[in-house]
Amino acid sequence: MKAAVLHEYDETLSRDELVRFEDVPEPRIESPTDVIVRIGGAGVCRTDLHVVEGIWRGHAHVTLPYIMGHENAGWIEEIGSAVTGVRPGDAVICHPLVTSGHCLACRRGDDMHAEDSRFPGINADGGYAQYLRSGARSLIRLPSTLSPKDVAPYTDAGLTAYRAAKKASRHLLPGEKAVVIGAGGLGHIGIQVLRALCAADIIVVDRSAASLELARQCGAHETVPADEHGVDRVLELTRGKGAEAVIDFVGEGTAVSQGLAMTRAGGSYYIVGYGGKVEIPTIDMITSEKTIVGNLVGTYAELVELMELADRGLVTLRTREYRLEDANQALKDLHHGRIHGRAVLIP
Amino acid sequence: MKAAVLHEYDETLSRDELVRFEDVPEPRIESPTDVIVRIGGAGVCRTDLHVVEGIWRGHAHVTLPYIMGHENAGWIEEIGSAVTGVRPGDAVICHPLVTSGHCLACRRGDDMHAEDSRFPGINADGGYAQYLRSGARSLIRLPSTLSPKDVAPYTDAGLTAYRAAKKASRHLLPGEKAVVIGAGGLGHIGIQVLRALCAADIIVVDRSAASLELARQCGAHETVPADEHGVDRVLELTRGKGAEAVIDFVGEGTAVSQGLAMTRAGGSYYIVGYGGKVEIPTIDMITSEKTIVGNLVGTYAELVELMELADRGLVTLRTREYRLEDANQALKDLHHGRIHGRAVLIP
Amino acid sequence: MKAAVLHEYDETLSRDELVRFEDVPEPRIESPTDVIVRIGGAGVCRTDLHVVEGIWRGHAHVTLPYIMGHENAGWIEEIGSAVTGVRPGDAVICHPLVTSGHCLACRRGDDMHAEDSRFPGINADGGYAQYLRSGARSLIRLPSTLSPKDVAPYTDAGLTAYRAAKKASRHLLPGEKAVVIGAGGLGHIGIQVLRALCAADIIVVDRSAASLELARQCGAHETVPADEHGVDRVLELTRGKGAEAVIDFVGEGTAVSQGLAMTRAGGSYYIVGYGGKVEIPTIDMITSEKTIVGNLVGTYAELVELMELADRGLVTLRTREYRLEDANQALKDLHHGRIHGRAVLIP
Amino acid sequence: MKAAVLHEYDETLSRDELVRFEDVPEPRIESPTDVIVRIGGAGVCRTDLHVVEGIWRGHAHVTLPYIMGHENAGWIEEIGSAVTGVRPGDAVICHPLVTSGHCLACRRGDDMHAEDSRFPGINADGGYAQYLRSGARSLIRLPSTLSPKDVAPYTDAGLTAYRAAKKASRHLLPGEKAVVIGAGGLGHIGIQVLRALCAADIIVVDRSAASLELARQCGAHETVPADEHGVDRVLELTRGKGAEAVIDFVGEGTAVSQGLAMTRAGGSYYIVGYGGKVEIPTIDMITSEKTIVGNLVGTYAELVELMELADRGLVTLRTREYRLEDANQALKDLHHGRIHGRAVLIP
Repeated sequence: MKAAVLHEYDETLSRDELVRFEDVPEPRIESPTDVIVRIGGAGVCRTDLHVVEGIWRGHAHVTLPYIMGHENAGWIEEIGSAVTGVRPGDAVICHPLVTSGHCLACRRGDDMHAEDSRFPGINADGGYAQYLRSGARSLIRLPSTLSPKDVAPYTDAGLTAYRAAKKASRHLLPGEKAVVIGAGGLGHIGIQVLRALCAADIIVVDRSAASLELARQCGAHETVPADEHGVDRVLELTRGKGAEAVIDFVGEGTAVSQGLAMTRAGGSYYIVGYGGKVEIPTIDMITSEKTIVGNLVGTYAELVELMELADRGLVTLRTREYRLEDANQALKDLHHGRIHGRAVLIP
Repeated sequence: MKAAVLHEYDETLSRDELVRFEDVPEPRIESPTDVIVRIGGAGVCRTDLHVVEGIWRGHAHVTLPYIMGHENAGWIEEIGSAVTGVRPGDAVICHPLVTSGHCLACRRGDDMHAEDSRFPGINADGGYAQYLRSGARSLIRLPSTLSPKDVAPYTDAGLTAYRAAKKASRHLLPGEKAVVIGAGGLGHIGIQVLRALCAADIIVVDRSAASLELARQCGAHETVPADEHGVDRVLELTRGKGAEAVIDFVGEGTAVSQGLAMTRAGGSYYIVGYGGKVEIPTIDMITSEKTIVGNLVGTYAELVELMELADRGLVTLRTREYRLEDANQALKDLHHGRIHGRAVLIP
Repeated sequence: MKAAVLHEYDETLSRDELVRFEDVPEPRIESPTDVIVRIGGAGVCRTDLHVVEGIWRGHAHVTLPYIMGHENAGWIEEIGSAVTGVRPGDAVICHPLVTSGHCLACRRGDDMHAEDSRFPGINADGGYAQYLRSGARSLIRLPSTLSPKDVAPYTDAGLTAYRAAKKASRHLLPGEKAVVIGAGGLGHIGIQVLRALCAADIIVVDRSAASLELARQCGAHETVPADEHGVDRVLELTRGKGAEAVIDFVGEGTAVSQGLAMTRAGGSYYIVGYGGKVEIPTIDMITSEKTIVGNLVGTYAELVELMELADRGLVTLRTREYRLEDANQALKDLHHGRIHGRAVLIP
Repeated sequence: MKAAVLHEYDETLSRDELVRFEDVPEPRIESPTDVIVRIGGAGVCRTDLHVVEGIWRGHAHVTLPYIMGHENAGWIEEIGSAVTGVRPGDAVICHPLVTSGHCLACRRGDDMHAEDSRFPGINADGGYAQYLRSGARSLIRLPSTLSPKDVAPYTDAGLTAYRAAKKASRHLLPGEKAVVIGAGGLGHIGIQVLRALCAADIIVVDRSAASLELARQCGAHETVPADEHGVDRVLELTRGKGAEAVIDFVGEGTAVSQGLAMTRAGGSYYIVGYGGKVEIPTIDMITSEKTIVGNLVGTYAELVELMELADRGLVTLRTREYRLEDANQALKDLHHGRIHGRAVLIP
């Protein structure tokens, strides 16, 4: 089959060919719970850039060459002998993690913290390809309102944004404020999830005017340019106190310190984006009684919930389609800030 | 009246006389809700050392000279015209914050985040003295089982430890692990609170053998010396995963980075001590989905709860009494690690 | 001043004159925290009918004659010596309960369960009059977008509906179902609150076609006539399982048993309306693991939250104005089901 | 194999032979996830009496003859081809429900509400026998401190008591009160769980002096005879207000109305026992804002938690052993209130 394969790391992302479009063997059923999915669309994620840069080398066991792509949807091609509930031809979206379901974390519904799992596209071959090996416990059948290529980015970008925004929505009361830093691929979904799940006022901070325009279309109540006046502007919009929740989809550069500065005493700062560093004196954590919350992708049940929102039109994805053979173009466009929403590779 | 007064900051805590024992005017009723309390005991807190060092200059509006002492209990001496519910002679413990009760935080029971408050001993004259001006909303009458000098440190050391341990107890399930870093004035209460409120296994980490012995008496299941093997030892005791909750009563030096390293994926690191700095790459927060929780002193209602525990003997304080005129000795002993439990000044 | 006064109970509500429009003495400041409010509007509530019927005799200490009216808003006329934060002329809405704020329930933010309180209109003179005696802790200043007569019913009808719907919204996930029984004065607010606070699908059950039409305007996704097919229809709309939350604004007749039958295993049945009886075998509670939740009016902080929703237009009240002298007409119209939304008396 | 088989219902439990001790075919592996367990002990539950009485006919699909026994522990005898994690010879305790794990309830950790499940002993052959067919997802390996016959009753009696007591412990604060009605097979475990998980004062109500004595040994702070003065006595012990939590392990006769009367405004009444009926006017639910909570057996993860408590000696079972051939004697003794703790059948 055709695939876009990563052969070498490139810390500066400066090479023309980050991945190589080439022929590779198709994946096969290896265990009774395996499922082969014919890819309908594979989302392109900033994490993929970080993988190419080599940032993930210490965090996941990857051996090059391998195939990136952890946001996958498509159709069932073949199922293992123990798979029930889905059949060849079914349109499905793939939860990014493949788990056995036996550990206590899975038993408690917290499958993202499974003791025994694979993460195709991160530590196993992913969906920048025609076919993908996924697992029986990872698949959700799509309603007829949704097609694979339109929903693929929900599996990671969407699901991560959903989980962080859902956590914040659990404590955001009417009249309270939520700041969203970064209205890109994840952020524009996070804004819509907040609109659907609570009645907080949403303030979006981004460097790009185009992203702030997208934020307004997604339901932001206020938008603030991410410049040196950003913190002051947010404090002004929150009666000098800061916001009860700040969701940081950037997580690098000045976003982190500014995000913490925008967080109200007693409030929560949710980290989703990464690349930077949290640095804060313990005395500031004590006196303000802030909470800093790390966020991974959501659970299987949360992906089901997100699909319910999508099915009702409460969340819609802004996508831009590229052919699989143009994967490098998609990665470059993402790297240079030319994508407002989410890129999807179509095999 | 007699008081131990702070006249000058001393960043190195090297002077012999950190506070001066001298005569000062007695406090008076200034508003209808004021209450004058005759001090029975005033706890000596590491925060007092930090105040002398000048660390709090940027965090609270203090003008020298002033009287430290934010852990106070005693007897009602005089009440303002609008005060009901307590009478002269009543034995009381003083919640450290004096609030008006009108802001939304107070209305939600979250009085520690009151918009309008005084914190005697931090930003107003405190209890290193014979008398203290407190407020109608800050007083809890003591049951006959408890005497002021024995409970004074509960108001801050106890209440802060209670709040952090209570937060942790809300998610600690049987079979899960709680690490307590530092078994000093706060830590030895935190251990007892955990024992009372949940069934987690408690692992205590401290540099001092005497503190670890105190920890065992307080109910620790395991004790670990806080040396270069501390993290490894905790990981060993938690099947390589770390603890679901780590409560850091030290918050400076290597405690912070070690505390974060002892925290399990999906777990929470509670900061109570301070002086150091949290430093962690955002990617580590993401992949581990940890939460970092700042902790201030507890609410009025939480001090009521803590008094219920004390009344039942579920929490007991290890105190060491000093005469008020020996305040410098108490501060020095605390500074040099010679106090296991909590020092209390008796006027 | 003029007032509509209740002189006698009437169990059948058949008399022409349920209340008597007459001259009575104006209320006066009796304690330093009292506030006199000039009434701008007083909502007419089904509870008022129940008061006239005598149902509340065993539940509240009332002596006739007295003035009903527990949904009040207006302008500050006069304040007691200890009142701060509001001034004569301010437009305010009155939380229905007048509390001292000293008990533990108030300290925890749960002021509806205050140990020491008055409930004007229930156990003290209320707002079917030109002036009302309220208290310093009960007043919320209105934003300029809202006028007293338009918001008065929020204080009880709105606040009770808000509290119940907010409780349900805390556990309702996308794709789950909420049934609202009764789209009258409370129900039509409850529907809007659910829309604002969660993304559940809302199914409204009512006998009246006009109420179902109002429900759709308020955001109901499905409407079901409250006849003998109601339960079956709801089960059909919930894949045979029932709804995760059922909020019963009727609470009498067949509503209760039907509401319980519409509740899914593991789900919650919220009782708001009353007059009937809960009857269910314990084995049915066990095997289904249902929860039955009683709901009183909300807290002061919740009324603040509701005003935030109203200020943003996320909740709007359908009101019908009557002159105070026409109070009997308003009560009769309510009794005979001729009001869709909420009646308000204007002095 | 030998088994004690139910052939006929007996509404009055008056026959000498309620079950017949006889030879039946051994269970066999029927699906790849099946596991055959050699029974070490099978608990005898009041539900078994209710099954014999025919009460469950409408609630579960049972065809006579069948084998009761839903509290089972033993050793793995044989495993299906897809079973991992356990091996023949392992000592295990069996979660009472056998699930496939694919429905959303299971995915959320709420396996007791699985859409697709078997409940051996209730709607399939149970453990009053030498061998039992259980499933891969239902087994927990025992630590060496615990032997099957000593822990079997934890799977239902213990787990149900654990779940109810754990729910209550989530909101019980120090100084608050928990009433336990019935200190029998479930109740005596519930008391210990409350002691382990919170610091509330525990008041136990029972008809039998022997049970009240057992309650005290299990950690009850107060005991109250369940006679006509029971409610008054509990109100006296709770300053006239009632308890924040009432856990009713009886659920029939006067227990239900008394349990509700013992529940404080804003408190929760947990139903565990059954046979009776909840009857309460909706107005009483409204004005008191009580919550009534139905309780089924706990989840797999909760059984793991309970085993952790047992392993640490925080919960111990009072059992009385009977040979399997004496099953009728055990059932009769239970019926006539001659068992204080829990009967266990040993094949």
